[in-house]
Amino acid sequence: MVRTGSPSAPAAGPTLAVVAREAGVSVPTASKVVNGREDVAPETRRRVTEALDRLGYVRRPRFDAARAPRLIDVVVHSLDSSWSGAVLRGVEQAAYDAGLDIVVSAGLARARPGRPERGWLDKLTLRGSAGVLFNLAELTEAQYAWLEQHRIPFVMIDPVREVPPDVVSVGAANWQGGVTATEHLLALGHRRVAVVAGPRRAPCGAARIAGYRSALTSAGIGYHPEYVLHAGFDEAEARRRTHELLDLPEPPTAVFACSDRMALGVYAALAERGLRVPDDISVVGFDDLPEARWAAPPLTTVRQPLAEMAATALRLLVRLMDGDPPESTRTELSTRLVERNSTAPPRG
Amino acid sequence: MVRTGSPSAPAAGPTLAVVAREAGVSVPTASKVVNGREDVAPETRRRVTEALDRLGYVRRPRFDAARAPRLIDVVVHSLDSSWSGAVLRGVEQAAYDAGLDIVVSAGLARARPGRPERGWLDKLTLRGSAGVLFNLAELTEAQYAWLEQHRIPFVMIDPVREVPPDVVSVGAANWQGGVTATEHLLALGHRRVAVVAGPRRAPCGAARIAGYRSALTSAGIGYHPEYVLHAGFDEAEARRRTHELLDLPEPPTAVFACSDRMALGVYAALAERGLRVPDDISVVGFDDLPEARWAAPPLTTVRQPLAEMAATALRLLVRLMDGDPPESTRTELSTRLVERNSTAPPRG
Repeated sequence: MVRTGSPSAPAAGPTLAVVAREAGVSVPTASKVVNGREDVAPETRRRVTEALDRLGYVRRPRFDAARAPRLIDVVVHSLDSSWSGAVLRGVEQAAYDAGLDIVVSAGLARARPGRPERGWLDKLTLRGSAGVLFNLAELTEAQYAWLEQHRIPFVMIDPVREVPPDVVSVGAANWQGGVTATEHLLALGHRRVAVVAGPRRAPCGAARIAGYRSALTSAGIGYHPEYVLHAGFDEAEARRRTHELLDLPEPPTAVFACSDRMALGVYAALAERGLRVPDDISVVGFDDLPEARWAAPPLTTVRQPLAEMAATALRLLVRLMDGDPPESTRTELSTRLVERNSTAPPRG
Repeated sequence: MVRTGSPSAPAAGPTLAVVAREAGVSVPTASKVVNGREDVAPETRRRVTEALDRLGYVRRPRFDAARAPRLIDVVVHSLDSSWSGAVLRGVEQAAYDAGLDIVVSAGLARARPGRPERGWLDKLTLRGSAGVLFNLAELTEAQYAWLEQHRIPFVMIDPVREVPPDVVSVGAANWQGGVTATEHLLALGHRRVAVVAGPRRAPCGAARIAGYRSALTSAGIGYHPEYVLHAGFDEAEARRRTHELLDLPEPPTAVFACSDRMALGVYAALAERGLRVPDDISVVGFDDLPEARWAAPPLTTVRQPLAEMAATALRLLVRLMDGDPPESTRTELSTRLVERNSTAPPRG
């Protein structure tokens, strides 16, 4: 016989009244024990629990609207990136601390233009979702309107497009991160520093490039647009862009990649040219995902505190749910340089 | 004003009757549109939607027991390992296909001996959880009893301890994987092959070691227990065990690590001794996580189909929920060798 094999079989066993009589308590008291309430004396609880077990009382789970934890939806693009892993870890812990449960879906990745996106929004409403966290998302005007119309509070973690000014979002201090990465390379003596940047419209990437420019300006070094190439956030496109940089008349001696995954793409292109990191060219990443540690050589990178960003987003969402909106719609957590082995002074 | 900033404000706007009159339809028809039902003519839906928007009708989410997706709980040890990422991806897609939502928690990691584990089991019952998937879990007898008592169906993905015979579980063909890894090393000419194995009581590890022994026997090579060392599944302990192997009078020329993370620990120990992979010593892992590709050199490993295992577990859980238990309580998906650059014939 398979355990829990017939969950739809009719409930067997005694009623709660029988259990209460067996334990020598009132039915309401027995009910309290069954429902896990705290206001029962330990000895009474023990007697009731023993009676429940002895008589084989079957407690079936049933949705308890008054006492069930509120459900937060967490909507991500992918579930098996280390980026998402860090975000989920942060959200889950903060949700646990707040007594909430999280429903996780990769719903955004399934949204299609035209035939929408409505599927998971409908689900939110049927479930009575208490709020939504969007990770690395890009919402359409229709989606924003739907959320507003249904009065579902939401917070965006590192949105990939500009968000309307009244939308609450959490990200990293991307501008400062761009400054930090660039200053590190300039301090080593590099003057031809390139950026393999994220998509042109991603606000996090734009801020990092602005930081890069600012660091150049502070050091009295001119900005050369041919050193700034846009790619997706993935390895393959970063690899191609790196080849373009290496084909320039004056190729860079250092590359700032706007994500660790892109830095791995830079590594791949350099290996294809027989160039060594950091002897021939220096590379700095952004994120500090586990792959930065495992890369060969281990990658110097700008750490953004993803789990903390996610936990912060959840706490802001709880404030919105409680009708206590934050004063600031945008929260940025600080970034810092993690020095490993992918940077060195330029050759010669 | 912060968007969705005051979700607890009283509902404003017109009643559904006003909307229906505005759109020239009956109230039940307007209600169908509001509730996303399909059985409404497109033109009618358009008229109602326009009226809803024009009048600013506020549709609030409310738990709809009859139509809300059923909730499955997915309980994991950690959320930010690539192992968990692959499992979550598989579960989420299969749940989506089955019209279910998943509540994700790292509840097991928080279970404490003595004061338990009851917290999240209580939550399952309050929410009326339709079923539970446990990933890499070890349940106590009390937890098994609780699940049975509440008739909550559950399936275990790669349990870390033996499970009772009536519990449904999904794993990889670990024995065959152990055979495959060992045969690969033997075919290269290795005769002194060591195993850095998982915890002694983990069934997946025991099956892999049995496969290793079987491959040795088939090749007419004696089994030497000093070549089989147990560790956790993490890097640090595998690193220490590797040093013990290297201190043997006749150290191995090849190591089969029972997880990719452990193989990285083996790499670290070898680097500390100035030994190169695969020139000085060959290494085979198990899992085929992303870090196997990123490792230097890229790791030859036994691939287990984690996302497929997870999707299979979800489908089995749905069968249990539907009162249609599977004939077999144990399902194993096949493993295969992924050859990369960490193995070579032994020196000399």
